[in-house]
Amino acid sequence: MKTFDIQPVDFRLTDIITQKIDNLNKPKGSLGRLESLAKQICLVQQTLTPILSHPCHLLMGGDHGIEREGVSVSPREVTWQQMVNFTKGGGGVNMFCRQHGFQLRIIDMGVDHDLSDIQGIEHCKVAMGTNNFLYGPAMTDQQYWQAIDTGAAQVDQCADEGCNILCIGEMGIANTSPSSIWTSLFGNIPLDECVGAGSGLNNEGIQHKLHILQKCVRHYQEWMAQQSYHDDQERNRLTIRYFGGYEMVGAIGAMLRAAEQKMLIMVDGFIMTACMLAASRLYPTILDYAIFGHCGDESGHRLALQLMDAQPLLHLGLRLGEGTGALCAYPIIESAVRMINEMNTFDHANITKYF
Amino acid sequence: MKTFDIQPVDFRLTDIITQKIDNLNKPKGSLGRLESLAKQICLVQQTLTPILSHPCHLLMGGDHGIEREGVSVSPREVTWQQMVNFTKGGGGVNMFCRQHGFQLRIIDMGVDHDLSDIQGIEHCKVAMGTNNFLYGPAMTDQQYWQAIDTGAAQVDQCADEGCNILCIGEMGIANTSPSSIWTSLFGNIPLDECVGAGSGLNNEGIQHKLHILQKCVRHYQEWMAQQSYHDDQERNRLTIRYFGGYEMVGAIGAMLRAAEQKMLIMVDGFIMTACMLAASRLYPTILDYAIFGHCGDESGHRLALQLMDAQPLLHLGLRLGEGTGALCAYPIIESAVRMINEMNTFDHANITKYF
Repeated sequence: MKTFDIQPVDFRLTDIITQKIDNLNKPKGSLGRLESLAKQICLVQQTLTPILSHPCHLLMGGDHGIEREGVSVSPREVTWQQMVNFTKGGGGVNMFCRQHGFQLRIIDMGVDHDLSDIQGIEHCKVAMGTNNFLYGPAMTDQQYWQAIDTGAAQVDQCADEGCNILCIGEMGIANTSPSSIWTSLFGNIPLDECVGAGSGLNNEGIQHKLHILQKCVRHYQEWMAQQSYHDDQERNRLTIRYFGGYEMVGAIGAMLRAAEQKMLIMVDGFIMTACMLAASRLYPTILDYAIFGHCGDESGHRLALQLMDAQPLLHLGLRLGEGTGALCAYPIIESAVRMINEMNTFDHANITKYF
Repeated sequence: MKTFDIQPVDFRLTDIITQKIDNLNKPKGSLGRLESLAKQICLVQQTLTPILSHPCHLLMGGDHGIEREGVSVSPREVTWQQMVNFTKGGGGVNMFCRQHGFQLRIIDMGVDHDLSDIQGIEHCKVAMGTNNFLYGPAMTDQQYWQAIDTGAAQVDQCADEGCNILCIGEMGIANTSPSSIWTSLFGNIPLDECVGAGSGLNNEGIQHKLHILQKCVRHYQEWMAQQSYHDDQERNRLTIRYFGGYEMVGAIGAMLRAAEQKMLIMVDGFIMTACMLAASRLYPTILDYAIFGHCGDESGHRLALQLMDAQPLLHLGLRLGEGTGALCAYPIIESAVRMINEMNTFDHANITKYF
């Protein structure tokens, strides 16, 4: 059993960072969200001159047993087909990695298809998709730890190459279902407020999905009543293991390791936000390192963000996943770093200080 | 008197553009605002494979007679000091132009300071700041046309260099005042809903500003009662001339010429949004070419955007001006263009089509 040593950022630098930002030649506060973002980055890096170095994107793929219950409009085979497509450079995630200079790692965490012949994929398959959590836990304890370790090891490889800002995305048909359930359970929010259209269900489809997921939660509660656990962290870990996909638990492992390594973590859409929520229920200090890239239209996503008091940078109505929302926000993060490094001060520019 | 021939975009291409976007390998509509943006760009350029070419940023500076009434927290000399600072590369606008590869043109439209010795500024001064519109029109008819022509000529120079996407920013202490008045008059909205803190007034300062501007509007109405005009366009032109700064009228000239040239026009914060509103009251078809970059916290800005049914790309709480909000949105525009040019289709990727 792996534990992570995630230090909260040292806030003692806050005043001197604020002072630097307030002396840049602009009305105080007039660069809005860029200013709060620059503060966070300076705190994470414990510096007044932050840098973004070798950005990496982990694209994690996995299939879900619950897909068998018709909870998604897209069929299961889309997961492996898209994984192959990503190796050819033609997916959404590819375009935006190219645009913003991200190294892309495509990781098979548990796709229900033999991808071992495909070049350009990291072969880390835990199993051929998870078990159907309508009938029991999605994965075993051993599989959970394997997925966590795999995600963490991927981050170590990025760190070895000099990466200090990590983005994570996912490909996994049906993975809004576990995301909705986590948001409901970790937020103590009625499930119906957390369940939405995913990649495009109609109203009837959403009702069916909700009905199935409610049944899943009842079975989970019966199962949990028979488990023994010593603390909240252990209970939350069981909840994660019961519903998670391998790509999601892998992402959680990656997030935890990235925070341990004091890297910035860019959080994408609903699924990755649910993973960050889950990770924060294991190690709350991880949120010091999280930059939320995008808020989409799925109500569960908004709720998960609220639970973490997160202020995402973009609101563009994206719901593709793959990390595309977070990647689109990367230039804003760069702008914040440029602001604090490149903008002239009032003194230096000989400008009458604004109030 | 110059007229502009601004053609509405030809919407006959809409269906085939939509078809192309819907066949990209993603759930339909899942790239949200990027999809509507790509459609607009394709329509403006009348192509299925749009390009962004040689982006230019016009930074227009000018002073305002109304500043003498204490309507701004920042003193008048900040305008020229910042203009000089921009030539040295240390302003907000400089950082973001560098980040996104924009050619920056710094244009003295009417700064109240002799800048003729400063290299790196386009010397187009119409006058040493406008007249104080508390007592009469900010500029003469001749000055209005000179500012319009100057803005248009700047765009012609950009076009000669191959630019097809134009961004415009401003530097002009007190220019939220005319922006508030234009929003109120063109939108038929009570002035108090359109007046805000500008670069940082407190509540007392805002009340003083409102009181002054209400007086200005009463004088304007008396003046207008004595003018003769033949149509709405002519009446709106008088309103623009009465309150506008040279940097604002120059921006309107630039916007009109850019639309005539079928360029994309990136619209920045409150002042540039008010200029686009004014331009659209002269030539409504200009809005086909406008991409709204950012919505800040100033209530007048939100109202001006609503009047044009505009959906800005970013909401980052910026209120610096200079074009910074629009520039920060540029990578989103690039992402939309990449999407339609680089993303694989379902057929080509051999992926089961999502619904």
